[in-house]
Amino acid sequence: MQKTQMAEHNNGSGQGTLYVVGTGPGSLEHLTPAATSALKDADIIVGYRTYLDLIHEYLADKEVIASEMMKEVDRCRQSLELASSGKTVALVSGGDPGIYAMAGLVFEMARDMDSSCEIEVVPGIAAVNGCAARLGAPLMHDFAAVSLSDLLTPWPLIEKRLTAVAMADFVCAIYNPKSKKRVEQIVKAREIFLAHRDPATPVGIVSAATRPHEKIQITTLENMLEADINMQSTVIIGNSQSYVWKGRMVTPRGYAEKYQLK
Amino acid sequence: MQKTQMAEHNNGSGQGTLYVVGTGPGSLEHLTPAATSALKDADIIVGYRTYLDLIHEYLADKEVIASEMMKEVDRCRQSLELASSGKTVALVSGGDPGIYAMAGLVFEMARDMDSSCEIEVVPGIAAVNGCAARLGAPLMHDFAAVSLSDLLTPWPLIEKRLTAVAMADFVCAIYNPKSKKRVEQIVKAREIFLAHRDPATPVGIVSAATRPHEKIQITTLENMLEADINMQSTVIIGNSQSYVWKGRMVTPRGYAEKYQLK
Repeated sequence: MQKTQMAEHNNGSGQGTLYVVGTGPGSLEHLTPAATSALKDADIIVGYRTYLDLIHEYLADKEVIASEMMKEVDRCRQSLELASSGKTVALVSGGDPGIYAMAGLVFEMARDMDSSCEIEVVPGIAAVNGCAARLGAPLMHDFAAVSLSDLLTPWPLIEKRLTAVAMADFVCAIYNPKSKKRVEQIVKAREIFLAHRDPATPVGIVSAATRPHEKIQITTLENMLEADINMQSTVIIGNSQSYVWKGRMVTPRGYAEKYQLK
Repeated sequence: MQKTQMAEHNNGSGQGTLYVVGTGPGSLEHLTPAATSALKDADIIVGYRTYLDLIHEYLADKEVIASEMMKEVDRCRQSLELASSGKTVALVSGGDPGIYAMAGLVFEMARDMDSSCEIEVVPGIAAVNGCAARLGAPLMHDFAAVSLSDLLTPWPLIEKRLTAVAMADFVCAIYNPKSKKRVEQIVKAREIFLAHRDPATPVGIVSAATRPHEKIQITTLENMLEADINMQSTVIIGNSQSYVWKGRMVTPRGYAEKYQLK
């Protein structure tokens, strides 16, 4: 938490601190001591209701501001205003706040509001790491993370990125693969990969990783659309070397056969 | 840790368990309870000496097998043999074992050895997450991780990947940017990015993230070679939208100006 350093920063400014805290994939077993400390240290905890429910045991005796989904801008503004008034605030983010989550928006808005509060990002286990661990070792080599949500990114750019990583044989972790209303992007993504990669390429899908209703599926590029893919899923498409062994998805570390395994 | 499930798996097989444990970027503040449980549960802890030093307080009363760098294959084989003989073994990996670390090799060798021990990957905060948090919010949009080590990957493939991510405007996290002997790859990587991205593009470099000798540098694509880059560094090259604000490197979430920040 680097208290000493922060204390110096804040010396005399009257400004508080905003922790942007990653709570990991869901289970408290993956909540780091740094995240726990930030939650305990905070006067006020702000977050999306679902993430707050996962950490409810840290909310006792705290002022809690729970909001619904899609209220990210409000949550950020409120957190920054409270921290600027001298409070210690923990803004909670699922996974890692630095990966498709709250950290970027906090800095964007802090700049816009000309905020002077101390901002500290407390990293969490990201969905991509949590899902990979549950699948086996599918990342293990150069990989790319691409979100299929075209709410904030033009679809042609997403297509360009998918094509680039498919051509260059990256393992690809797909965030936001599908929602109730947004169902066509994953179909197009699969087509792009099929143009460059074997239909038998392993694909791992983890939904609600480490939570009670966790679901792990291993399929292929060809058959992936038959799998259950939803808003809580991360989809990992293997590279040309990936394989499945005893129900685990593995991408080898080397392209050359440099290891003398025997 | 899913003890119940594992106990069922192992029922009557006489085989033990191999935990592949990610210890995060360095500071114990980022070691998850799941990782701590695995270390406590283990009869034997195996790892590279430097990583074991970081978690020395968990080594008391344990059988410890410390090895030097570059002995990954030996460490994996020994861990699998011990687990196959019925022991509970924790094979320790810095960062996240699933990202350029031990998880892949464990499965590769387990397949080769036809091992039947239970293997569980315990994710850790990866270097890319830890470094990003220290820099601000540089990832925040589609990103790629590329290792510049050509020990196990042919250099032309690495160049192809760098070109692909540079062209498609990914944020790029570079692992293994430079070692004492391997100094030219980062020079070439910079040239590839300069062919597709503004020389003023922010570049963040974090060395030994969260450890006592941590070093955080923010520079530009143009000037990055003047920075201190070593074996403990992760280099994050921003995308076309990344900027620096009050010493923090930020990549905005959206390309479109969809947020009404005012």
